[in-house]
Amino acid sequence: MSELATICGVGTTKFGKQPEIPARELAWEAVSEAILDAAITPGQIDAVFAGTVFGDPGVATRSLQQLGISGVPIITIENACASSTSAFHEGCASISSGRYETVLAFGIETMTASFSGAISPISSDPEGAQGFAMPALYGMSAARYQHEFGVTDEQLAAVSVKNHGHGRHNPRAQHQKAPTIDQVLESPVISSPLTLLQCCSIADAAAAAVLRPPGIPGGVRVLSSSLKSGGLWDQRSELVWGWQIVADTARAAYEEAGVSALDIDVFEVHDAFTIGEIVTTEALGLAELGAGGRLVESGYTTLGGNQPVNPSGGLLSRGHPLGATGLAQIAEIVWQLRGDAGARQVPDARLGVVETMGGGTAGVDGNACVVTVLETPASRNAISAA
Amino acid sequence: MSELATICGVGTTKFGKQPEIPARELAWEAVSEAILDAAITPGQIDAVFAGTVFGDPGVATRSLQQLGISGVPIITIENACASSTSAFHEGCASISSGRYETVLAFGIETMTASFSGAISPISSDPEGAQGFAMPALYGMSAARYQHEFGVTDEQLAAVSVKNHGHGRHNPRAQHQKAPTIDQVLESPVISSPLTLLQCCSIADAAAAAVLRPPGIPGGVRVLSSSLKSGGLWDQRSELVWGWQIVADTARAAYEEAGVSALDIDVFEVHDAFTIGEIVTTEALGLAELGAGGRLVESGYTTLGGNQPVNPSGGLLSRGHPLGATGLAQIAEIVWQLRGDAGARQVPDARLGVVETMGGGTAGVDGNACVVTVLETPASRNAISAA
Repeated sequence: MSELATICGVGTTKFGKQPEIPARELAWEAVSEAILDAAITPGQIDAVFAGTVFGDPGVATRSLQQLGISGVPIITIENACASSTSAFHEGCASISSGRYETVLAFGIETMTASFSGAISPISSDPEGAQGFAMPALYGMSAARYQHEFGVTDEQLAAVSVKNHGHGRHNPRAQHQKAPTIDQVLESPVISSPLTLLQCCSIADAAAAAVLRPPGIPGGVRVLSSSLKSGGLWDQRSELVWGWQIVADTARAAYEEAGVSALDIDVFEVHDAFTIGEIVTTEALGLAELGAGGRLVESGYTTLGGNQPVNPSGGLLSRGHPLGATGLAQIAEIVWQLRGDAGARQVPDARLGVVETMGGGTAGVDGNACVVTVLETPASRNAISAA
Repeated sequence: MSELATICGVGTTKFGKQPEIPARELAWEAVSEAILDAAITPGQIDAVFAGTVFGDPGVATRSLQQLGISGVPIITIENACASSTSAFHEGCASISSGRYETVLAFGIETMTASFSGAISPISSDPEGAQGFAMPALYGMSAARYQHEFGVTDEQLAAVSVKNHGHGRHNPRAQHQKAPTIDQVLESPVISSPLTLLQCCSIADAAAAAVLRPPGIPGGVRVLSSSLKSGGLWDQRSELVWGWQIVADTARAAYEEAGVSALDIDVFEVHDAFTIGEIVTTEALGLAELGAGGRLVESGYTTLGGNQPVNPSGGLLSRGHPLGATGLAQIAEIVWQLRGDAGARQVPDARLGVVETMGGGTAGVDGNACVVTVLETPASRNAISAA
């Protein structure tokens, strides 16, 4: 298997409601940590790929200038919730093609100063015009899964219990309390059958990674990265929203990396809502269609289980600052593959996968999905194989 | 000189206030024209790079889905006024590295439904906090040029007269009336010394280009493309805002293409305000520092002069829909180099340059500048050399 790039350093802020901190200051914190972690200087950075959804125009430039990063190409990408994994993806491509030697990818989002409730599709889209906010769209998927596959309320709640349980061990997570199944089900209904504790929170945060060419000692290896936009999707589609795009993107990423789903030791996936993780684990190949509810209930994806999913706490516990989420997922898998994940470490994690899915446009099966396969640093791999 | 890519087709909407047309419909018009012009089918497109500043999240996906363009990577870039030339730049890089065979680049902006006056930097930036809208920033540059270099009111006005004169021959331009010097100077003062007819208008429009590898017969050749962000800039800087970034970016683009400024037959440059074109023509190497006012007054950059600048009418006459502007400039130079520019054709144009500069962030010499050097199709070049 060939490699696209090396992740030489990562950084994130704490996640949560921190409306008093300007976007640029959040970015400084994440970018500084990544640069220090990579043991580079700002002057080595050849280009920057940033991700944000609702950031002000120029947010990346504004974030970087006072770090002394200027003059170089700065490309800011909007790709819904996959914005910063899209920035990561473009950064990897720019490294693997030999265009740049050192690339900074970062994601930034400050939501709590601008939003107070659910995010809705724009009002010129049919869903937006009808008042279907994102929780309503996921609620419909959940109801359909209950009807078609017998997914239970408890199975949905199990995703929340698992991820909040993981997030308890993540000092940067927005929510660090682990509820019980009953507490999840007794929390207020947001969009039936989804209750409050099954919905991610809006947050303010930044996350960053430094990318360099393959072969840098000690760095996490990017084996593959795939980015797709969704095909047309409507009431005639056989699968719920977001299934096919994740399956197609994952298949491409696995193939490029020469791995299969069962080879992967740890996943960070897009659990914006509990049903999202159930659908996604199926689409990623961890369970058959319709079996995702039973999968999570079995403990297979819990820390200590065979293939832990969202050891960071995921979007449900860490929080979901849209444009920062993708690189926060990358950071978690990097820490896992370096053995730096502390109390939430997956033992001997060697291969990790990040999946981010961004939606919001009516009539397509997701605006974008990115799946990347990462491998532990060569040195660490050699040790664990010895 | 090597080539990065071939521009096989371009398209734009009409420019102007058309708030009743949704963004996606403007995009359809420009993208359809580009696809037909390139004689490809939507299914051939491997990836899309879009540019927008204030477009809704998902605007690119929303624009493309009903054209049947889905599934492929769609990357939406914000880079201030250089957003769609940034999309073009990334598209060219993705072709030249062999990543994709056929790329769609497009820019989309619908401003008149959201804005009614001048655009201001965000209020957390010092300029924004002090109420310095973009015309005020350019007005200060103009005042400084008058003080330092003796640029006259008439020289400033000459840019407007020239570009509106060119735009009279552009059926897609927002403003198709050509004022006199007196009319320009007698129009209302916006930010002294700049008057209304020296300021570009907000507009709604889209523009697109289809990119393929070098060597496609009949296509315009992309000899080089350079993208830089601005260095730190403040009251200690010797040159006015936007001079150095354009000079640096142009130097890199000329060098990569193996050309010099005097080799170029036709330019499209960022004349958001009259002083902008004066500064830019200097930075591009058409005049010494401080001599840009005399250059335009001499007729050197008028159609029929030695090196025409903004034959399309530029931002002043065509209008300035931020994220669509860069690819509209590209489209104009493509038409010029193919001999398709009608009454505004620069005779035997063989080499053309597009320059776009985007600002809005305090303390940097522009968020981004893109300069690209384009050459006439090989077949046409052979004919004109014969």
